[in-house]
Amino acid sequence: MTSTEPLRVALAGLGTVGGGVIRLLDANRDLITRRAGREIEVVAVSARDRTKDRGFDATRFAWVDDTSALANHQGADVVVELIGGSDGPALTLARATLGAGKGFVTANKAMLAHHGLELARAAEAAGVPLKFEAAVAGGIPVVKGLREGAAANEIARVYGILNGTCNFILSKMEMPDEKGRARDFADVLAEAQALGYAEADPTFDIDGIDAAHKLSLLASLAFGTTPAFDDVDAHGIRQVIAADIAEAAALGYKVRLVGVAEAGAHGLFQRVHPHLVPIDHPLAHVTGSLNAVVAEGNFVGRLFFQGAGAGDGPTASAVVADLIDIARGEFGPAFAMPADSLDVASKADSGERRGRAYLRFTVEDRVGVLAEIAAAMRDAGVSIESLIQRGGHGDDAGAVLVAIVTHDGPERCVAQALEKLRGSSSLAGAPLWMHILE
Amino acid sequence: MTSTEPLRVALAGLGTVGGGVIRLLDANRDLITRRAGREIEVVAVSARDRTKDRGFDATRFAWVDDTSALANHQGADVVVELIGGSDGPALTLARATLGAGKGFVTANKAMLAHHGLELARAAEAAGVPLKFEAAVAGGIPVVKGLREGAAANEIARVYGILNGTCNFILSKMEMPDEKGRARDFADVLAEAQALGYAEADPTFDIDGIDAAHKLSLLASLAFGTTPAFDDVDAHGIRQVIAADIAEAAALGYKVRLVGVAEAGAHGLFQRVHPHLVPIDHPLAHVTGSLNAVVAEGNFVGRLFFQGAGAGDGPTASAVVADLIDIARGEFGPAFAMPADSLDVASKADSGERRGRAYLRFTVEDRVGVLAEIAAAMRDAGVSIESLIQRGGHGDDAGAVLVAIVTHDGPERCVAQALEKLRGSSSLAGAPLWMHILE
Repeated sequence: MTSTEPLRVALAGLGTVGGGVIRLLDANRDLITRRAGREIEVVAVSARDRTKDRGFDATRFAWVDDTSALANHQGADVVVELIGGSDGPALTLARATLGAGKGFVTANKAMLAHHGLELARAAEAAGVPLKFEAAVAGGIPVVKGLREGAAANEIARVYGILNGTCNFILSKMEMPDEKGRARDFADVLAEAQALGYAEADPTFDIDGIDAAHKLSLLASLAFGTTPAFDDVDAHGIRQVIAADIAEAAALGYKVRLVGVAEAGAHGLFQRVHPHLVPIDHPLAHVTGSLNAVVAEGNFVGRLFFQGAGAGDGPTASAVVADLIDIARGEFGPAFAMPADSLDVASKADSGERRGRAYLRFTVEDRVGVLAEIAAAMRDAGVSIESLIQRGGHGDDAGAVLVAIVTHDGPERCVAQALEKLRGSSSLAGAPLWMHILE
Repeated sequence: MTSTEPLRVALAGLGTVGGGVIRLLDANRDLITRRAGREIEVVAVSARDRTKDRGFDATRFAWVDDTSALANHQGADVVVELIGGSDGPALTLARATLGAGKGFVTANKAMLAHHGLELARAAEAAGVPLKFEAAVAGGIPVVKGLREGAAANEIARVYGILNGTCNFILSKMEMPDEKGRARDFADVLAEAQALGYAEADPTFDIDGIDAAHKLSLLASLAFGTTPAFDDVDAHGIRQVIAADIAEAAALGYKVRLVGVAEAGAHGLFQRVHPHLVPIDHPLAHVTGSLNAVVAEGNFVGRLFFQGAGAGDGPTASAVVADLIDIARGEFGPAFAMPADSLDVASKADSGERRGRAYLRFTVEDRVGVLAEIAAAMRDAGVSIESLIQRGGHGDDAGAVLVAIVTHDGPERCVAQALEKLRGSSSLAGAPLWMHILE
């Protein structure tokens, strides 16, 4: 049931995204009122610094120093949380808001990955909306795409590029520098930090944690399972070197950090890992800080969504889309079905998976190294499709690179081979294992 | 307000898509019930032949011979119309259903392009849903993407590949035949017909009418304007020859039939036309019978949606997504805002538009022809970026091809140049004008 009264919003956090939400509501006010059927009005805000210049007049809003007090702000129907963090003030605010019977909109993937089920239950108990379009893939309406657009389908697999920082870095590494040399990870990370595409502490992004948060939410929506962040195998891109990107290119692939979730008889499989993506796959063309998500449904086939995965404008677009849904009265259970209907899936054993792998070793340049690697593969039953050995690469001209592509086979065998080689004095560093996306 | 009673559906049309809806509801029944919060149950159907083998038991449904009687079928809450046609039985059924205060779901782009405003008004008057996800781009949830996902944005432009038959043909024309020769339109059309990708009478598809129907619906959703099919300039791909695709490739482009809608101070611009799409644009990678839509919002930036644009599975997926929305009680005005709030936009004058153009002439091989073309361009003020003249192509080895790429300039000038050349005895056929997508 909609109303013609304004939808009154209390906003926690006036950083990049919070500022974006205010600017969007100001810029597109009339349009939003027409589409939502009523005004969306920010009535109160809570942020650290009241006097900071944000490009708009923040003094026109009621200012609430204690963030959690927004939950009980008399004039508000909905609280928007844009302060972040899986616990702490964000979680306190979420619980208080839903407990007070008000709607809650958030961009906080970490909090939902850890506490989504509890919050969804609280929202249902209160009969109020809990919405989080902005938490996954920024401006791309992929929460809606899974929850509603693909709702008629059994989803076999959902996967995508979920972290713009990593994709920016990997895309840059593909491009030679002005001296025509491939660029290594550390060099490009520094540039990304200077440009604002990576945080000063980039751990959550480049180690795959942020993508894992998002993947756990996509998996829940796709498979009707409870969010299970702890069951995501998360790996990042620190180990990827320029030579990997060059070898991948020579084989017809791009390197991308891909989050993959798959439901099967063996349980729920969720992994964030650098992948070799075939050049004719749409994910291979996702460059820079873009995000993209693929959902494979049993009737719709392959759906592909692409857009800006971060930034104030795109994220604000997703937050306000949620507010428009609420203003229209078009909302329901957060995870596409009542929280108590969600299945608790067991974690699939990745060793049971089959696939092709790219394995790269950096080795000492001496007799017998190749034989040692080849023997470890043979003993573990890993069948080799191609092997390339190359002398000196990058800054470490003394080291030798061995890149192997395996035939399709069980991941367990590859893991055994790598385990056997662990600590070998022949290896100059830990090997890199990338999966080949089929 | 949702109910726990089943949502009862009467279905008109048991052809490819109608059969797909039944098969989908059968296959994914439990999943859909969990997601929708209640069962979705087909209670009555109307189709031509009751005894035809459709791969499922159609005798379990109440069979209604008079299609329009479905509107008043006592057991039904919603009617799904999958019989097609802009007028006739489909329109009669739509009016009767909404008049009877029941919801209406359709895949009928032609009917909505012509009568969408009237039907949206009728649905609002009755307080019932009118939904049409399947009418645009098959299984891709792009109606939802614009109506809801991008709802916070002012959309500057919406465009895409909206006809799978044309895209299949153009993609095939890119690939040489077994003798290494480029393939011409008629040859590939015959193959597409044999494979079921093109109708026996392919006019609606290959002349751009089907894409124009869909574009008029996207434009309404994107710009908050009444559907204005009559204002779409629709052109098709009959004129595209293998040599055009080869010239485009040499210049770094793919040829695609693109529908473009743009709102501006000069009115609403809507055109379906073959375009040269830069190879680094996502639309260039949309091959085969896929569809794709791009929406450019002032906060979200460029959103890109891709998927299957036709076929029983994808279209059924979209129809049932609409039914799930209705079962959940999550629906509102058909065109994103109340019908009486939609603006009536004037048609923009395409002559005012600027851009680069590809112009191809097939000419007699004689002295002075090139001078005549060049003079016509000069007199109309068209600035030429590149010009290629090639001897004998395809089956018509005596003819000469002249392909021109213009600098950015007003379309009016190009039109004047072509008008001046019209009927010239130097030309062996009508010239082809393709716009270059920027």
